Amino acid sequence: MKILVINGPNLNLLGKREKNVYGARTLKEINKKMLRVAGEKNAELDFFQSNHEGEIVDKLGAADKSYNAVVINPAAYTHTSVAIRDAVAALDIPVIEVHISNIYKREEFRHKSLIAPVAQGQVSGFGEYSYILGLLAAIHTAGNK
Amino acid sequence: MKILVINGPNLNLLGKREKNVYGARTLKEINKKMLRVAGEKNAELDFFQSNHEGEIVDKLGAADKSYNAVVINPAAYTHTSVAIRDAVAALDIPVIEVHISNIYKREEFRHKSLIAPVAQGQVSGFGEYSYILGLLAAIHTAGNK
Amino acid sequence: MKILVINGPNLNLLGKREKNVYGARTLKEINKKMLRVAGEKNAELDFFQSNHEGEIVDKLGAADKSYNAVVINPAAYTHTSVAIRDAVAALDIPVIEVHISNIYKREEFRHKSLIAPVAQGQVSGFGEYSYILGLLAAIHTAGNK
Amino acid sequence: MKILVINGPNLNLLGKREKNVYGARTLKEINKKMLRVAGEKNAELDFFQSNHEGEIVDKLGAADKSYNAVVINPAAYTHTSVAIRDAVAALDIPVIEVHISNIYKREEFRHKSLIAPVAQGQVSGFGEYSYILGLLAAIHTAGNK
Amino acid sequence: MKILVINGPNLNLLGKREKNVYGARTLKEINKKMLRVAGEKNAELDFFQSNHEGEIVDKLGAADKSYNAVVINPAAYTHTSVAIRDAVAALDIPVIEVHISNIYKREEFRHKSLIAPVAQGQVSGFGEYSYILGLLAAIHTAGNK
Amino acid sequence: MKILVINGPNLNLLGKREKNVYGARTLKEINKKMLRVAGEKNAELDFFQSNHEGEIVDKLGAADKSYNAVVINPAAYTHTSVAIRDAVAALDIPVIEVHISNIYKREEFRHKSLIAPVAQGQVSGFGEYSYILGLLAAIHTAGNK
Amino acid sequence: MKILVINGPNLNLLGKREKNVYGARTLKEINKKMLRVAGEKNAELDFFQSNHEGEIVDKLGAADKSYNAVVINPAAYTHTSVAIRDAVAALDIPVIEVHISNIYKREEFRHKSLIAPVAQGQVSGFGEYSYILGLLAAIHTAGNK
Amino acid sequence: MKILVINGPNLNLLGKREKNVYGARTLKEINKKMLRVAGEKNAELDFFQSNHEGEIVDKLGAADKSYNAVVINPAAYTHTSVAIRDAVAALDIPVIEVHISNIYKREEFRHKSLIAPVAQGQVSGFGEYSYILGLLAAIHTAGNK
Amino acid sequence: MKILVINGPNLNLLGKREKNVYGARTLKEINKKMLRVAGEKNAELDFFQSNHEGEIVDKLGAADKSYNAVVINPAAYTHTSVAIRDAVAALDIPVIEVHISNIYKREEFRHKSLIAPVAQGQVSGFGEYSYILGLLAAIHTAGNK
Amino acid sequence: MKILVINGPNLNLLGKREKNVYGARTLKEINKKMLRVAGEKNAELDFFQSNHEGEIVDKLGAADKSYNAVVINPAAYTHTSVAIRDAVAALDIPVIEVHISNIYKREEFRHKSLIAPVAQGQVSGFGEYSYILGLLAAIHTAGNK
Amino acid sequence: MKILVINGPNLNLLGKREKNVYGARTLKEINKKMLRVAGEKNAELDFFQSNHEGEIVDKLGAADKSYNAVVINPAAYTHTSVAIRDAVAALDIPVIEVHISNIYKREEFRHKSLIAPVAQGQVSGFGEYSYILGLLAAIHTAGNK
Amino acid sequence: MKILVINGPNLNLLGKREKNVYGARTLKEINKKMLRVAGEKNAELDFFQSNHEGEIVDKLGAADKSYNAVVINPAAYTHTSVAIRDAVAALDIPVIEVHISNIYKREEFRHKSLIAPVAQGQVSGFGEYSYILGLLAAIHTAGNK
Repeated sequence: MKILVINGPNLNLLGKREKNVYGARTLKEINKKMLRVAGEKNAELDFFQSNHEGEIVDKLGAADKSYNAVVINPAAYTHTSVAIRDAVAALDIPVIEVHISNIYKREEFRHKSLIAPVAQGQVSGFGEYSYILGLLAAIHTAGNK
Repeated sequence: MKILVINGPNLNLLGKREKNVYGARTLKEINKKMLRVAGEKNAELDFFQSNHEGEIVDKLGAADKSYNAVVINPAAYTHTSVAIRDAVAALDIPVIEVHISNIYKREEFRHKSLIAPVAQGQVSGFGEYSYILGLLAAIHTAGNK
Repeated sequence: MKILVINGPNLNLLGKREKNVYGARTLKEINKKMLRVAGEKNAELDFFQSNHEGEIVDKLGAADKSYNAVVINPAAYTHTSVAIRDAVAALDIPVIEVHISNIYKREEFRHKSLIAPVAQGQVSGFGEYSYILGLLAAIHTAGNK
Repeated sequence: MKILVINGPNLNLLGKREKNVYGARTLKEINKKMLRVAGEKNAELDFFQSNHEGEIVDKLGAADKSYNAVVINPAAYTHTSVAIRDAVAALDIPVIEVHISNIYKREEFRHKSLIAPVAQGQVSGFGEYSYILGLLAAIHTAGNK
Repeated sequence: MKILVINGPNLNLLGKREKNVYGARTLKEINKKMLRVAGEKNAELDFFQSNHEGEIVDKLGAADKSYNAVVINPAAYTHTSVAIRDAVAALDIPVIEVHISNIYKREEFRHKSLIAPVAQGQVSGFGEYSYILGLLAAIHTAGNK
Repeated sequence: MKILVINGPNLNLLGKREKNVYGARTLKEINKKMLRVAGEKNAELDFFQSNHEGEIVDKLGAADKSYNAVVINPAAYTHTSVAIRDAVAALDIPVIEVHISNIYKREEFRHKSLIAPVAQGQVSGFGEYSYILGLLAAIHTAGNK
Repeated sequence: MKILVINGPNLNLLGKREKNVYGARTLKEINKKMLRVAGEKNAELDFFQSNHEGEIVDKLGAADKSYNAVVINPAAYTHTSVAIRDAVAALDIPVIEVHISNIYKREEFRHKSLIAPVAQGQVSGFGEYSYILGLLAAIHTAGNK
Repeated sequence: MKILVINGPNLNLLGKREKNVYGARTLKEINKKMLRVAGEKNAELDFFQSNHEGEIVDKLGAADKSYNAVVINPAAYTHTSVAIRDAVAALDIPVIEVHISNIYKREEFRHKSLIAPVAQGQVSGFGEYSYILGLLAAIHTAGNK
Repeated sequence: MKILVINGPNLNLLGKREKNVYGARTLKEINKKMLRVAGEKNAELDFFQSNHEGEIVDKLGAADKSYNAVVINPAAYTHTSVAIRDAVAALDIPVIEVHISNIYKREEFRHKSLIAPVAQGQVSGFGEYSYILGLLAAIHTAGNK
Repeated sequence: MKILVINGPNLNLLGKREKNVYGARTLKEINKKMLRVAGEKNAELDFFQSNHEGEIVDKLGAADKSYNAVVINPAAYTHTSVAIRDAVAALDIPVIEVHISNIYKREEFRHKSLIAPVAQGQVSGFGEYSYILGLLAAIHTAGNK
Repeated sequence: MKILVINGPNLNLLGKREKNVYGARTLKEINKKMLRVAGEKNAELDFFQSNHEGEIVDKLGAADKSYNAVVINPAAYTHTSVAIRDAVAALDIPVIEVHISNIYKREEFRHKSLIAPVAQGQVSGFGEYSYILGLLAAIHTAGNK
Repeated sequence: MKILVINGPNLNLLGKREKNVYGARTLKEINKKMLRVAGEKNAELDFFQSNHEGEIVDKLGAADKSYNAVVINPAAYTHTSVAIRDAVAALDIPVIEVHISNIYKREEFRHKSLIAPVAQGQVSGFGEYSYILGLLAAIHTAGNK
């Protein structure tokens, strides 16, 4: 089983800025934790981070040739990108949406996800542990297909 | 570690009606699965189901004397109960909101959760497996407090 | 043929208060009239009134084991209860929604029924006679199934 | 007792098109059924169908000289015609609004009736049987005046 | 100088129904009053009443060959007819919109006139005297062209 | 008969600025025209102009001791002043609202008048002649009381 | 004079949780203070607290047989319960709505009270002293009837 | 192949008024151009223009007995007629919606077409050439059925 | 203790107009009643009434040099004055908002108070007695500071 | 004559996924069809596809040096890109917007095109044939300039 | 060059209250700073502060006789005064709108400026330095006219 | 002191297209003017222009290592980019938003800036001089930190 993990804009700054909102852990450290859990479940992971909407669309467009599932934190594009939504909808493999913070506790415009209605499901608000739960959900859902 | 699992209105019918939406598993069978996972993590579980908003408020009002965390599927009350929201906000222990179906794929009025802004986080859309992920999130969050 | 008649909150006050809106007839007198019509059509009736949302959900949850149809006046819960809506949607037997007053002539927030989209149909505005029409509709629909 | 039955735009096509929504019965067959019920209650019926908003306004404008009540299915004009609403409001005899389908189960723009707040009451969702119930309501209401 | 006076749907019922809203005067009596005022100002009047949106559009479409101005009470079509609005906008002669009642005191949906933005001006709320003021405005405006 | 004519903010600039919108006539010239018409009808006029909301409220508050009617062009306060609205509503004499330009042809925020629902009626869009029509309406309405 | 004091959901937790919002005083202590003030005014008090919407509706439904007025803090049901609103509207005795916190300083959804339009009046924002003011208002209003 | 071309209200005025918006060509001249293109494609055309909503509904109601497709410019009814929408939806042959001007460049209320969601497709903004494109689309679509 | 009592626009008319809404008591009589209650509590009162938004802002701007609290009935400015809101927010002493009528029973635009979110609390709906309750609230709150 | 054909995000997947929505034809095949039609009209075509908003803005920014017209299917960016809208508005050559599916039949957020108000015109809903119609429109419009 | 500087309601309190929002500098000190900058640019300044909307309208109404530009901080009237907006729109000299705080970071109702669409431009969020930037903008714009 | 100047999509076209809206000056010429002003204040400038949202996010993500402040004209992304907003919010150095045109005078959708609530302040409407004012604001704010 092979899973693609996509991180959207500004997440390269994790652990460096606004630590009170997003926690002190860097993206690299989170990825390491995910690899450990994936190992226990015999799953392989590929990581991709980009600030460019188009690159994420490119990546998703090519995903179902090589992966069984996608875990994605679309960050700011969650609320504005119809293009990523369409790319997710075009995939035949399950896509799991994750968020570090509880988006329903934040500004009004972050309460609405364009991705959620086309994703398999959503995990939100458990800090870095949201990625672990999202990964487990991906493995579970892909395994049951 | 002791965790309270609350199920809201009509969930006593799980596995008996509308199986295409909610799956074929009964609440009893889901509870059994949760107990197995809780056992592996050395956590105890108590289960409570009610169709009455007031009873759920009563239960939550007494919860932080005896529990380390709550996992709740508020079902229909997710979208209408300010009373349950206030009861959740009054608790000092983490409350995890779970949904069997992806509520963002359903009718407009189910897209807005009154509980989410005061919960720790939300898991939605993974069928009965949402309960397992919610339980793991509860154990993880309560363990880190 | 057996039909369950459910009356929601404050309808126990019928004929006692606000007679200009709801008429001078008590619920008991209306029930007697319904029994007479049911008798002519060889249908049996059970009556249930409650001010508690949860009790109505309980009652509906158990209804399709024993009844061929339900006639319900959800009163105030018409506009606020997603829980009753879900309980109605989960039933395999026809549910007929009735209102004594014409809800479209009253305050704005009474114009929207959460129950209507999942009910078989709606009868509104004919005073106590709405119950008779609702009963006829229930017998007719259940008879054609 | 004399009752006018008005059918709005496209209802001349009943039983010919979109049978899955409106049923297989033609307007003529429905009218025959109504006549039978009216006969039992010693009521006379006149039928009028038009696709023209203005003609329906004309008809309603002249109705209370000759009729004791009106049963109307305004079809598409339910949602757009202030002119028909005003004509109904100007009548001193009861007007009963009926709909074949449950309008609250259909597109958003069909949920709002301009006629309902000025009609005596509304019957919606029982197929051709909505006409029979509407007729009974008309006879009952006119008889009590 | 020749002026066309157009009355929309249900105004044929003036003085016969809902006298508390529209006054006790019939359209015929109002027309007679208008003729007297027109006479003093050496203006001729033609009257036209119709419940049909299309007929009013036809009439307006032909108006600027024979008239110097139009006085129109579009009644219910005030709020729904883009066709009459377009017909008014296509005219080169001034069109004066009049209303017997104060439309801003009535239901919400009567507050918005589709005709007002393309008319010369609007007179509303003076009972039958609104027609006299509208007529004076028409004569004055046409005389200044 | 005695009538008070009130002009709101910026109308002291009439005939001096934005002549393409409001015409070339000064307020003084318009007042002279109104006096001539009032003379023919044996009515006396008092004029009051102010840019101050509070002063207009003061004036209206004292008006029904000395006047039979009020003609008011509330200008910008038309759309924002609940205080003037309340002062108008408190008067027992008829208040006529006039506007030089057609307010429904202008910016969106000018389409809504707070005064209209409590005024006797409204005249809008006939340039300076709106004042003459408003005066006639005031004399007519006050004379019929 | 006899007055019923009703407290809605979660108010049994007063003085135990979220003290920064609701103050440090328990419901029992507040009740004692109310009794003292009532004593000075020769009024008797009965207290009722419930987390159940239906129980509050039951209580109100029976209130006007035994009481001269009601003081109610509907808490979360303020914003969601049409059933309690209907029960209040059905009473012939004055009902006074009180709130400990200033509900207009809190979340958007707490700004709208369904109860206020059918209550005698509202007191909000003075901490526990809101109950004393509400009690005085009840005694004053009931005494003047 | 036989195609019906329907033109809605005010289009009889094409080439006569508001030429800057709708062009200088009359409807007759446009029809001649359409006939030439139809001739090349071996298609026959019938033309129908009406200012009456009801007549257009009638025409559409009878269309699929005699035609392979419909090209319609509903003009003002585009935005207001649920009746025409329903008539279009009831047809089994393709209906092509055309507009001379770009309706999305015009007033807000012209941006929403009630017809578009039930038409085969829409062509808007190419002046008289919109008719030619609409005709080609009609022939193409009907030919592929 | 010294308290400032401010009354907004049109309240100088109390007891003279619209007595059915605002009662028969004049402002002078209400002030006398307030003085009596203030005397019992050893508080001094100053009264200020103005129809001018700017004067009320001036008065509030100078208030905290000389007073311990303010009782204000902003009347119409309740719903429109951001300037008074800002002046209230700038004060360090408690400000109590009072209303004679129950503003939630009146027109829609009176349901929203701009002052409430920055005031200490609000009393509404008890007629002239609202002033007494507001005064008690002011003395209580200022005494506890 | 030289025309630029731009395809937005995910259109590289045409004919590979969601064939029920977008048809079975690949972008390459569609381009070939367009070339054939262009050949008959003596027009040259250049093709450009990108998932990147910025690249499409770059391309449009340079377009009017080398092309007579642009045919663009902005796909998901239709609804979110003000940047592409501004780039289109800045061009002096006609831009034709095309859509394979009928965007007005799909989700609410796809009904609003940001591009349409600045484009020459729009063709929507004819499957791959939309491109052919768009091309004909481009050639026709550019030829008439 | 002569420039008028207008300050709206509550700005006389600058430096005295809510220093965390508006800074510690008084209006007098800010004016002194502006005079120094104006001196360097050979411009003269006049200052005007008022809490009265009408006085500001008066001042603006007379401004273009004596000044080359206006710098205005309308404070609370920014969001409510159509009268000030109209006065600004009537001026032929440039008007620059300035705000001390960033109004887009504050309450929702402060995000919308009625003045901005008729002003030359807006400067917001730089504390007292906003006045200096506004002054420079005024000198620059007036100098280029 | 070192300042980064960022220009968003289509601004590379400045001085080449739509000169009536954006002026005749090219971006290069504006940059030269900024350099001159920066020189006088001993500040260094770096310039960056891109049509790509992701590149602007990248640039901002790396900005606070090397700069004291940022001046940004986000152009079309002002209204659509949550990603740029998040990147601005993550910076510890002041960010100044500038606009050439007065965005509040343009289309409705340009009135709302997503960037403004997280920027230090905004300058809008002074043509190319907006950049000079923004630069002065940046130097001033960064100098005071």
